[in-house]
Amino acid sequence: MSEDIRKNFASDNVTPACPEVIEAICQVNHDNVPSYGEDPISATLNKHFSDVFETETVVFPIVTGTAANSLALSAMVAPYGSVLCDQSAHINTDEGGAPEFFTHGAKLVGIPSSQGRMDPETLPTSLKHNLAKGVLTPPFQCLSLTQATEWGTTYSCATLSQLTEIAHEHSLTVHLDGARLGNAIAHLGCSPAETTWKAGIDVLSFGGTKAGAMAAEAIVFFVNDRTRPMIQSMPHLQKRSGHTWSKQRFLSTQLLALLDNNLWLTNALHANAMSQRLLHALQRHPAAQVPFDVESNEVFAVLPYPLIETLREEGYCFYCYPTPDGVPGGLARFVMSFYTRPQDVDALIESLNA
Amino acid sequence: MSEDIRKNFASDNVTPACPEVIEAICQVNHDNVPSYGEDPISATLNKHFSDVFETETVVFPIVTGTAANSLALSAMVAPYGSVLCDQSAHINTDEGGAPEFFTHGAKLVGIPSSQGRMDPETLPTSLKHNLAKGVLTPPFQCLSLTQATEWGTTYSCATLSQLTEIAHEHSLTVHLDGARLGNAIAHLGCSPAETTWKAGIDVLSFGGTKAGAMAAEAIVFFVNDRTRPMIQSMPHLQKRSGHTWSKQRFLSTQLLALLDNNLWLTNALHANAMSQRLLHALQRHPAAQVPFDVESNEVFAVLPYPLIETLREEGYCFYCYPTPDGVPGGLARFVMSFYTRPQDVDALIESLNA
Amino acid sequence: MSEDIRKNFASDNVTPACPEVIEAICQVNHDNVPSYGEDPISATLNKHFSDVFETETVVFPIVTGTAANSLALSAMVAPYGSVLCDQSAHINTDEGGAPEFFTHGAKLVGIPSSQGRMDPETLPTSLKHNLAKGVLTPPFQCLSLTQATEWGTTYSCATLSQLTEIAHEHSLTVHLDGARLGNAIAHLGCSPAETTWKAGIDVLSFGGTKAGAMAAEAIVFFVNDRTRPMIQSMPHLQKRSGHTWSKQRFLSTQLLALLDNNLWLTNALHANAMSQRLLHALQRHPAAQVPFDVESNEVFAVLPYPLIETLREEGYCFYCYPTPDGVPGGLARFVMSFYTRPQDVDALIESLNA
Amino acid sequence: MSEDIRKNFASDNVTPACPEVIEAICQVNHDNVPSYGEDPISATLNKHFSDVFETETVVFPIVTGTAANSLALSAMVAPYGSVLCDQSAHINTDEGGAPEFFTHGAKLVGIPSSQGRMDPETLPTSLKHNLAKGVLTPPFQCLSLTQATEWGTTYSCATLSQLTEIAHEHSLTVHLDGARLGNAIAHLGCSPAETTWKAGIDVLSFGGTKAGAMAAEAIVFFVNDRTRPMIQSMPHLQKRSGHTWSKQRFLSTQLLALLDNNLWLTNALHANAMSQRLLHALQRHPAAQVPFDVESNEVFAVLPYPLIETLREEGYCFYCYPTPDGVPGGLARFVMSFYTRPQDVDALIESLNA
Repeated sequence: MSEDIRKNFASDNVTPACPEVIEAICQVNHDNVPSYGEDPISATLNKHFSDVFETETVVFPIVTGTAANSLALSAMVAPYGSVLCDQSAHINTDEGGAPEFFTHGAKLVGIPSSQGRMDPETLPTSLKHNLAKGVLTPPFQCLSLTQATEWGTTYSCATLSQLTEIAHEHSLTVHLDGARLGNAIAHLGCSPAETTWKAGIDVLSFGGTKAGAMAAEAIVFFVNDRTRPMIQSMPHLQKRSGHTWSKQRFLSTQLLALLDNNLWLTNALHANAMSQRLLHALQRHPAAQVPFDVESNEVFAVLPYPLIETLREEGYCFYCYPTPDGVPGGLARFVMSFYTRPQDVDALIESLNA
Repeated sequence: MSEDIRKNFASDNVTPACPEVIEAICQVNHDNVPSYGEDPISATLNKHFSDVFETETVVFPIVTGTAANSLALSAMVAPYGSVLCDQSAHINTDEGGAPEFFTHGAKLVGIPSSQGRMDPETLPTSLKHNLAKGVLTPPFQCLSLTQATEWGTTYSCATLSQLTEIAHEHSLTVHLDGARLGNAIAHLGCSPAETTWKAGIDVLSFGGTKAGAMAAEAIVFFVNDRTRPMIQSMPHLQKRSGHTWSKQRFLSTQLLALLDNNLWLTNALHANAMSQRLLHALQRHPAAQVPFDVESNEVFAVLPYPLIETLREEGYCFYCYPTPDGVPGGLARFVMSFYTRPQDVDALIESLNA
Repeated sequence: MSEDIRKNFASDNVTPACPEVIEAICQVNHDNVPSYGEDPISATLNKHFSDVFETETVVFPIVTGTAANSLALSAMVAPYGSVLCDQSAHINTDEGGAPEFFTHGAKLVGIPSSQGRMDPETLPTSLKHNLAKGVLTPPFQCLSLTQATEWGTTYSCATLSQLTEIAHEHSLTVHLDGARLGNAIAHLGCSPAETTWKAGIDVLSFGGTKAGAMAAEAIVFFVNDRTRPMIQSMPHLQKRSGHTWSKQRFLSTQLLALLDNNLWLTNALHANAMSQRLLHALQRHPAAQVPFDVESNEVFAVLPYPLIETLREEGYCFYCYPTPDGVPGGLARFVMSFYTRPQDVDALIESLNA
Repeated sequence: MSEDIRKNFASDNVTPACPEVIEAICQVNHDNVPSYGEDPISATLNKHFSDVFETETVVFPIVTGTAANSLALSAMVAPYGSVLCDQSAHINTDEGGAPEFFTHGAKLVGIPSSQGRMDPETLPTSLKHNLAKGVLTPPFQCLSLTQATEWGTTYSCATLSQLTEIAHEHSLTVHLDGARLGNAIAHLGCSPAETTWKAGIDVLSFGGTKAGAMAAEAIVFFVNDRTRPMIQSMPHLQKRSGHTWSKQRFLSTQLLALLDNNLWLTNALHANAMSQRLLHALQRHPAAQVPFDVESNEVFAVLPYPLIETLREEGYCFYCYPTPDGVPGGLARFVMSFYTRPQDVDALIESLNA
């Protein structure tokens, strides 16, 4: 009794897991093995991620993206410090205060931007104002970037490098929220290394769930002098937040399945293609307006309210944000995944055009 | 290349998941469904738990026991309050400071006991001393009990009732760490209701992982005037700690598989039987001493060090605690599970007796 | 060797204490008395504040304004909640993350404004967007207003009432940062009651230090159904943050000295008059621009950089903020106090006009 | 209307300030000076303390002992770490959970002892057990000692050195709660240096309030490689907890008054002498039993309940602790101060003997 047409575009986390992930879970379900990450499957994580990212990594598998981001930040910033990010960043808007919880109240300072991308031009000013305030303001200790951004755009590797260079000059470490890193890589055509540590990223939240896992993310530390002390504290931070699985093999195996044969990137390429398919239709649509560059698996469109209501009545699921003042309608978001088929997008397009 | 003899008795979390749980995961892996617990499978959790416990419950599925205990406590105690527990309680000794993290520094006050069971005789004195100190000491707001206890013993339902009555009289709410609740029930021969809310428990950490799940626990609120405000805050606490799965169906389905046909209790009965099998051998062993009542799936034995070393050389895995002053040897713990077979216990017995 | 001309306009906290406060400290320095607020002087605080504010109050004396604000907020908002305030609010910009520390990471959400005053027109929209996000965003639980504001402006009692009514309708409680409440009252010509609880304020941070105390503020709870539970938790919150003085009489006596004969208001009237004296000169100054209504003891002026430098060279102390993009110069702040004399202002004016 | 006989022996914090402290406050009450510790009086603190302790120190003046202890610990231990201390330590029993608040939930682990002194013989075992538990238990990062102890006893400098050496060998830093350090020094006849950094102390909470201040303590960092990073973070920790006075001169001047002419030690010597006066009487008392060595300004005595009641009826104030099981009566505590006169002790003795 499956859906004929998959009408839920609300998020890339409404999907099932992809079959390879479930298969991997079934395959490790035998034998007693040491718990809390001491099992032989988990023992291979560092090596597999190091291969994919072409550098030494230390990896902690984590069950949700919110926890991965927040745990990473808690290793990077003192409770009295602050995290600089784009105002639209997921950590700032959609994680229920988890970064503040894990960091014991470090302040997130969100800078406004137009397309979700922080700007290397204005970053130095933000840093200067903060540092001038001494103890009156929590000092910036971490820059958190998002790739792909919350608005579905991406940073070029060159822009990332500019941003991280400024951050490092001011003694900030750099975190990358990569919940949709695969989609960004698939769009940019660069390597995993190029868009992360080669561009100055110190710590990565590697997104697995939206890429096809059942529930699996990874905090990836690119080993350097800045990250070494973080790596030391992470096992304690992880356990203390209830995020150390006893039967960790079931978490690790999902990640390995995604890395195997570049499944995470294959899935991302497919999802991105579905986005472009919808984009082309919207660009020709007389009443739709696409405000953000479509550079991953998300498509945003300002649509008239009657059209939004019609879609909803037909069973379509998608988020709708308020538009800026004076712009009529709603800002609809359509998210594609490995599970979205061409016929699902085509059916949506048909409804949009009806 | 599976083990012929299963020699890992370190914990009931070194096991795989039981087949029914994996099957349940496979079965829900289709279709887009709303995320964050709004899916149709999760929607049935409250009803299923209410049926099993014969009262109205509100249930939050959680991936680890540490998180389940700590989240529950964080809904029960103010940051400036304290939690009364047995000194040996898992929350006090083995959760890496997670209760303190989730509760923002509420104090755990551990009372010494001989067999891991808190004593209704001395509880009123502990409460009186605490309350007399005013703001100088964090006030007790919660009593946390463990069933079965850390030493593998159980509370009778009558003792539980005595303890919870005293707690409620002093305005404390009562938490039960039920990581091995099934084993206690299997031993006591009572109903799930009798050993929980009918004995005065307000909030239960229901253990699934050690009972056969891949990774699934549940915070079960027995609905009453004390728990109603906790239930209101729980969705925020859960999200904020990164413990709200986007694809929650995969967590919920494990719990439903355990409840189905009382699988959790069947598994527990089997594990308990394995404990008794070992106990009988130890009772006849000239050099072993069994210090705690064996009332669940854990067997503790004081063993001479040479014997401990021999077992380890043969490949046996088990924890070893320091013995009290003056008692020679080590305090070995052997934990049984659904996955322990009679032949595995018999092989261990043979090695013990060699 | 005192200064002939007092050239430090950096803040109203660079001053000494006013003589009446020091006299009061000397007067209570005899006899053993019970500690931690059980002394007979502290026992009269509630009554004196209740008289001044014409309603039942419960008062906690606190040594710094940062602690008073943050402790108050920690009694008003859950760790998973959030506080709505003006973007320029002192709690949001100048307290080193103290509100986040005391509230265990509750989020401060700062709304931009032009003159430091929150706007009753746009407040409902901010509330609606927040509440629509469910667990994804920390729910607003408290509205924090500042009177006088960070830019030296004041709210009319009518505007305060509008704002607090909207807040209460959405189940938020209302905090007033009154570090310069006396100055606001002196400007508005209203009563202490009218600008606080009669305008819907639940909890007040009453500023004493800037009004002439050595170091003394008060958290004033206006007793109602919303504040009663906060009052219960406050003694624990206060002790737990190291803000309960053992020899509390020395803190309480300062507050009583300020209330006695309305000293706090007399001091405020004088400081406000000094502000107007400077304002009149600035309004006639060809190169100065006064961006904010001068309604308390602070005067802000955009000044050309060479003039700023000249003043500094002459020994004047004052803060200088960045101006908005495109506006040349710096935004200088001059703060008046009970300790500022007409001749000090006149000397500054002379230097400005030179 | 002062008391003829001073009958309040409840604590050394029920007293007024000594006249030199009040005089010092009056003396600095002139002129505008920079706030938040940038004033010229505060600028001399480091030098004065360095002189007294004969080594380089960095000093932060703090208003209460609870805050001094807790802030110090928060610079010494990670939130996921733990603090080892005597079970009777003030931080563990009487500070309302403040250490847990400031450290964000680091765990205090209290070891039982007979006279309030930790034991160098058993310390290695405690450390070994802790470290063996890996992430399951918060790792010890700090040893906190109390001098004089909560039971009025003192550590010899040799014992302190033994304890701190073991701590440093295991990578713990060492904190000394010196709320009554002056009393210990007065008893031991050693120098301030000998009982602190020369005995391996890294960070000292220097007690001023009980030594005669109105309200003033100091966190004293003895500069070494372990303390340098703590010193960096302290200004932020201090501000963030609302413990940075704007008019800090009034806090600093109290500390300087205590150091001047060794007033703190003169006061301590006097208080200790009063203790000995009472002790001699109690030793001859037929119904009293003195359980702890009297080595500072506190005298503990097990007294029969009727005698306790009689004293209370006569107006005497003192704490009364429960006695160990089987010992009849109550454990009364009498605390002496600079303000206790011989005639006050003699009157008490007379009442005890009546």
